Amino acid sequence: MDAAEFRRRGKEMVDYVADYLENIEKRQVYPDVEPGYLRSLIPEEAPEEAESYEDVFKDIERVIMPGAASPACTELETVMLDWLGKMLKLPEDFLAGTEGRGGGVIQGTASEATLIALLAARSKIVKLIQADHPDRSETHIISKLVAYSSDQAHSSVERAGLIGGLRMKKIPTDNKFSVRGDALQKVLEEDRATGLIPFFFCATLGTTPSCAFDCVTELGPICNAEKIWMHIDAAYAGSAFICPEFRPLLNGIEFADSFNFNPHKWLLVNFDCSAMWVKNRSDIIGAFKMEPLYLKHDHQESGNHSHWQIPLGRRFRSLKIWFVFRMYGLKGLQAYIRKHVGLAKEFESLVRADQRFEISADVVLGLVCFRLKGSNELNETLLKRINNARKIHLVPCQLAGKFVLRFAVCARTTESRHVQEAWCHISHLASELLQELPH
Amino acid sequence: MDAAEFRRRGKEMVDYVADYLENIEKRQVYPDVEPGYLRSLIPEEAPEEAESYEDVFKDIERVIMPGAASPACTELETVMLDWLGKMLKLPEDFLAGTEGRGGGVIQGTASEATLIALLAARSKIVKLIQADHPDRSETHIISKLVAYSSDQAHSSVERAGLIGGLRMKKIPTDNKFSVRGDALQKVLEEDRATGLIPFFFCATLGTTPSCAFDCVTELGPICNAEKIWMHIDAAYAGSAFICPEFRPLLNGIEFADSFNFNPHKWLLVNFDCSAMWVKNRSDIIGAFKMEPLYLKHDHQESGNHSHWQIPLGRRFRSLKIWFVFRMYGLKGLQAYIRKHVGLAKEFESLVRADQRFEISADVVLGLVCFRLKGSNELNETLLKRINNARKIHLVPCQLAGKFVLRFAVCARTTESRHVQEAWCHISHLASELLQELPH
Repeated sequence: MDAAEFRRRGKEMVDYVADYLENIEKRQVYPDVEPGYLRSLIPEEAPEEAESYEDVFKDIERVIMPGAASPACTELETVMLDWLGKMLKLPEDFLAGTEGRGGGVIQGTASEATLIALLAARSKIVKLIQADHPDRSETHIISKLVAYSSDQAHSSVERAGLIGGLRMKKIPTDNKFSVRGDALQKVLEEDRATGLIPFFFCATLGTTPSCAFDCVTELGPICNAEKIWMHIDAAYAGSAFICPEFRPLLNGIEFADSFNFNPHKWLLVNFDCSAMWVKNRSDIIGAFKMEPLYLKHDHQESGNHSHWQIPLGRRFRSLKIWFVFRMYGLKGLQAYIRKHVGLAKEFESLVRADQRFEISADVVLGLVCFRLKGSNELNETLLKRINNARKIHLVPCQLAGKFVLRFAVCARTTESRHVQEAWCHISHLASELLQELPH
Repeated sequence: MDAAEFRRRGKEMVDYVADYLENIEKRQVYPDVEPGYLRSLIPEEAPEEAESYEDVFKDIERVIMPGAASPACTELETVMLDWLGKMLKLPEDFLAGTEGRGGGVIQGTASEATLIALLAARSKIVKLIQADHPDRSETHIISKLVAYSSDQAHSSVERAGLIGGLRMKKIPTDNKFSVRGDALQKVLEEDRATGLIPFFFCATLGTTPSCAFDCVTELGPICNAEKIWMHIDAAYAGSAFICPEFRPLLNGIEFADSFNFNPHKWLLVNFDCSAMWVKNRSDIIGAFKMEPLYLKHDHQESGNHSHWQIPLGRRFRSLKIWFVFRMYGLKGLQAYIRKHVGLAKEFESLVRADQRFEISADVVLGLVCFRLKGSNELNETLLKRINNARKIHLVPCQLAGKFVLRFAVCARTTESRHVQEAWCHISHLASELLQELPH
């Protein structure tokens, strides 16, 4: 949708909202629909090709309004997470369908998804141990638990441990910044030997510093054998898995108990929208469900996503997904991902062609980690000059002790000329900086 | 703003967004402003009288755009929570100002605010005990902790305990459904005698079932003397405290460590927007702060609300507050609250005038708890018929073993005629029901 169409459609939507408010008394206060009404009104999968805005818009009255906010909000979300799960070729176990035990939910951020998974895992292991040892107190069991993540994992993973009052350890990564099976196995053995109870591993696909991928095909079987909940956090990279050529990066997902990525990061859905799937809905609901009289309702069969999250109230975020997926179609979204990866590769080539620079990590998706050959101080100065010039903005990281610059292609409107201009600018500032140095 | 103006202003806003996107390359990628730039650009308090939309709108370019998303998002939020705190006449301790130790933050829901307060209190008590007894482990201390709330508290309070892995007890309420000082004192003494460590009390002002108020002026001094963190949850009722005649309901706030209410419930701000204040920002930040390299930035002095909440990402929700408070003015918002309370009183009079019914709890704000004199089954049947007719929708509660109907005035457009029609409808259905009964 270009700006001209956005103006037209935006104004139509303003009128729709005003009409709705002016005529609200003509609408029923409570819907007539039967639980599960929505699924049959829309296709089972996201469209391959883009649809017209008219078609999308007219479905608001046909599909949403009969179910008002509830149960439409819950039901559309369930179906949209099924659509998205199918786009990612998630194993059937993760889909809700009409009879599945799994399913998806929209969280606000990956931080919340990790926390929810961790708390569900905690609740599950406590129940499991108490089933065999009814004498052991929850507090005692929790004091023995230990959760793991990559030493490259996002800070929110450690923070989830802090919130849940749980011991959290970092597994060292290999020279590609990936956690490998043997590294996890080693720590598990050490910890079991000292009486700890490993119960949760958070794998990262696409780490924040360098977009590295933990080796889930090695880690998953270990977690399954050791009865450790495996959560996969693919906050950024997950969007790319809708392309067949990137889907192998998700191999091993079949071993996971829960999986999460952020369509708001790279799939054109506005913030916030973090998609989370679990194989067993009951694991999550069991950890959180509270049902006082004022929360009971006649649509229990539609489910209630409040039991899947920290807040109680919910917004109608699945509408964003529904609109975006239909306006772009799967092919449009794939093209968008591929374009960004192509632009990152273009930047990588520019860096590699310049002998003063080095690439610091494999460029797999839209992130390029690079630095001037030389000291950390030199690179810190370069970064400061780049950001102070306020033409582009880069966020750094540390990789194996080295201060590294990160070039991330992530805006909807980024084109080749922006990448070229950015490189020109960086290269110019680097030349200035290097000339100032004593030889 | 009526529907006609909404149409006009909404369309102007669509154009503004389109213009912004079309011309985005002319804007700086990173703001030039100094941390703290925003506070001096806007008044220190919310306006008494409504302002014109033009005046509000033109401040977007003047106040927000120079600070882009960051630091404008954080700074406007801090100032808006100061505005709102002043509207509620919160003690100075809770305001950020330019030098205060307290301050406010927008959470998504009251559930999150309670959880944050509980976790901050947990972290604080653990540090406090470890300062005197460095040998005691965190796990051991946590296993001894106990938190409290009213037996009328919202289910989210109990759920926060579940999430934090913390023991949570309910304090019995008096015949007005309020927790009194002696009830808390009694439980504290019993628990201390068995070696437990009381550390947190969540008081409710305006309970969900009946809008009852815990006696904070009695409870606060006890909590302060016993070094127990007192959090006040006024999710619904809090909005009313902007009216001088309802402000006494908040008396005792000076004893609290944290306070929360939901402007999205009753102050015309769209969901989600839950306002939370703390006396010591460092208590909260200390419990959550994680600062990897990729999250460091040059505007640290503006603060970072990510350390105050569960998610890491944040939306620009303070814009909603800014617009609403200026479009209504304090007087407009007070008039809105008073109108709703008046409508609830009107409904109460209708109920009281009908001998078949009884009022089940004091009507203080916009909620009327009522029932047919008679059995719970009778009232359950009445509720079922009311809701099945789909003209109005009521949510029930249990009060002292009785099944009670709740009439809540909470929509922006509710007028006296709606209340009259609702009563007429309820009364008619009650007549039908009572006629069917054997005499």
